[in-house]
Amino acid sequence: MSKKYKVALVVGAGAFGTSIATVLSNNFDKVVVKVRSEDVYRGIKDNHENGIYLPGLPLPKNILAALTWDEVDEYCPKEQLELIVSGLPTAGIETFFQEHYDRFASYFDCSIPLLSLSKGIDPVTLELSDDLFYDTFPKHRELFNFLSGPSFAREIMEEQITLVAIAGRSKQVLTKVIDMVESHYFRALASYDVKGVLLGGALKNVIAIAGGIIEGLGFNYNTRAAMITRAISDMLKFGKVFNARPETFYGLSGMGDLILTTTGKLSRNKSFGLEVAKGRNPEEIISSQRTVVEGYKTTKAAYLLSNKFEIQANIFVGVHEVLYGGKPPQEAIQKIMEIPIIFEDGTHL
Amino acid sequence: MSKKYKVALVVGAGAFGTSIATVLSNNFDKVVVKVRSEDVYRGIKDNHENGIYLPGLPLPKNILAALTWDEVDEYCPKEQLELIVSGLPTAGIETFFQEHYDRFASYFDCSIPLLSLSKGIDPVTLELSDDLFYDTFPKHRELFNFLSGPSFAREIMEEQITLVAIAGRSKQVLTKVIDMVESHYFRALASYDVKGVLLGGALKNVIAIAGGIIEGLGFNYNTRAAMITRAISDMLKFGKVFNARPETFYGLSGMGDLILTTTGKLSRNKSFGLEVAKGRNPEEIISSQRTVVEGYKTTKAAYLLSNKFEIQANIFVGVHEVLYGGKPPQEAIQKIMEIPIIFEDGTHL
Repeated sequence: MSKKYKVALVVGAGAFGTSIATVLSNNFDKVVVKVRSEDVYRGIKDNHENGIYLPGLPLPKNILAALTWDEVDEYCPKEQLELIVSGLPTAGIETFFQEHYDRFASYFDCSIPLLSLSKGIDPVTLELSDDLFYDTFPKHRELFNFLSGPSFAREIMEEQITLVAIAGRSKQVLTKVIDMVESHYFRALASYDVKGVLLGGALKNVIAIAGGIIEGLGFNYNTRAAMITRAISDMLKFGKVFNARPETFYGLSGMGDLILTTTGKLSRNKSFGLEVAKGRNPEEIISSQRTVVEGYKTTKAAYLLSNKFEIQANIFVGVHEVLYGGKPPQEAIQKIMEIPIIFEDGTHL
Repeated sequence: MSKKYKVALVVGAGAFGTSIATVLSNNFDKVVVKVRSEDVYRGIKDNHENGIYLPGLPLPKNILAALTWDEVDEYCPKEQLELIVSGLPTAGIETFFQEHYDRFASYFDCSIPLLSLSKGIDPVTLELSDDLFYDTFPKHRELFNFLSGPSFAREIMEEQITLVAIAGRSKQVLTKVIDMVESHYFRALASYDVKGVLLGGALKNVIAIAGGIIEGLGFNYNTRAAMITRAISDMLKFGKVFNARPETFYGLSGMGDLILTTTGKLSRNKSFGLEVAKGRNPEEIISSQRTVVEGYKTTKAAYLLSNKFEIQANIFVGVHEVLYGGKPPQEAIQKIMEIPIIFEDGTHL
């Protein structure tokens, strides 16, 4: 029996991209995943499993892997394609879409919408991922949508009830994309605040690293809850610079995702922070693993932003000092604790 | 060597009252704890330990237990008394202070400030604890201060870095009380939003129960983060009725405490929810234990408030249906998931 939608194309087969492909497989006849590496390709094709990023979790049979663009064209002819999902890390977006400009421009000329899963800030241009897409495809801004919210890939695969935010500029496109992803365990709430949704998703990774560091140093729940709460105040200051709505930071893509990544067990950013607390060299940890720790680069970007716009974001600056300045984590925490704050908004009595 | 302040009197020697007594022992020569039960009294007096509520944690030697008011007067003559702390559960405040009206009225006539630790809503009058004090001592409103925020008693005893909010009406009194409690591991931020601070502290206990239920049913981090985030939206609706400031719910006493109690291991409210998820009878669980589960009564109060003021607070109503209406928890969650929400603020596209 055919489903409501025909074909979706997912580029990037990391853990999160694969989990969203699985969500889409409920509503699409076929979900084609364009992968780069032979081992992921073989895993999906031969065993219906992404053995590299989501080992042990079977994928639905209507998820098809494609290693070449010829395969993509074979599995998803343009006239059947109804959604493109970008599961690329932020740093890879610009290069990828410029390299395959003609193909994607022709998709967008047919009004096929895109849903991006990236949560990061470009550490060089300090742009959020919406601008990376808009720069390359300025005519098609209304087609780009951005998903963010508390959602571990593995739990999506287990059909845990999951709520995320999807931000976009067009009411019509948003409504359609939300309809495409929703299922009995996965729901998406709409937002027009693209910057707010992206910023929350990006900055929370830095706080997740801080959460890992704090936990690794032996601090417990009181300290963690205090740090998370104060971090949201810092995030709002970044939001101001980007004209984001404060409410967005208190929603799924802000606070929701922050709670998930700092208190959940599975976050890569938090695990990274735990390793840093043990005294390991941050750069060494990063270079020794295959998965991307978005928060590492975002820490740099957030620091540069705080300098550029004179944002007083103590927790973010503290994490930067630890990751890039060689400061002992214990010392950074002490410094944050000593800042005189009388009211929660930073004003004095 | 004598300390900055002379004597503090703490009434109510539960876990939290005892931990705040310990914090105060850093700044006061003596902290006198008025206890009701012989076993707690003997524990503090003979072994410097509150063996009932905080077993295994040694108390400082300058914490003195008093079983009778004669002992109180012996240890803390009125002219040396500089702070009163109320560690009573919400339901006990009115009776206690009416019974000992003359004593406390005479303290307040000498402008001795009070710091209340209660987090609850009176399930009969639907009053927050500030009104319970104001009703009894209407002339001395400016002396009453209210502490709330992410702070497990046991972690305070371990000197984990802890940040809380203290709300009050007088700048001068607030400044003094904050100075009295602060130490190298314990900090308090000021707020004039008494209602907001109390409401967050009270309502979060209901959500902690919901968190326990969700966890007990086998849901994991994605679902928990989504529930917490949506719950804050519900809390804001209650806040509106009490003229509380929205920002307060995003601060230490709101979101901060919510994160602590729903994601930390030690919360009584969460443990209670876990038991409920196993199918145990809520009333039976409550009556079988000595410690107070504030959230159980607050659930009733929140439900009555939502009726009285026509507040649409789905998560709160869902918890009420499970605790007082015999509804299976799984069914309540399903119902909450089915509510059509398109934007996070509840509006439609």
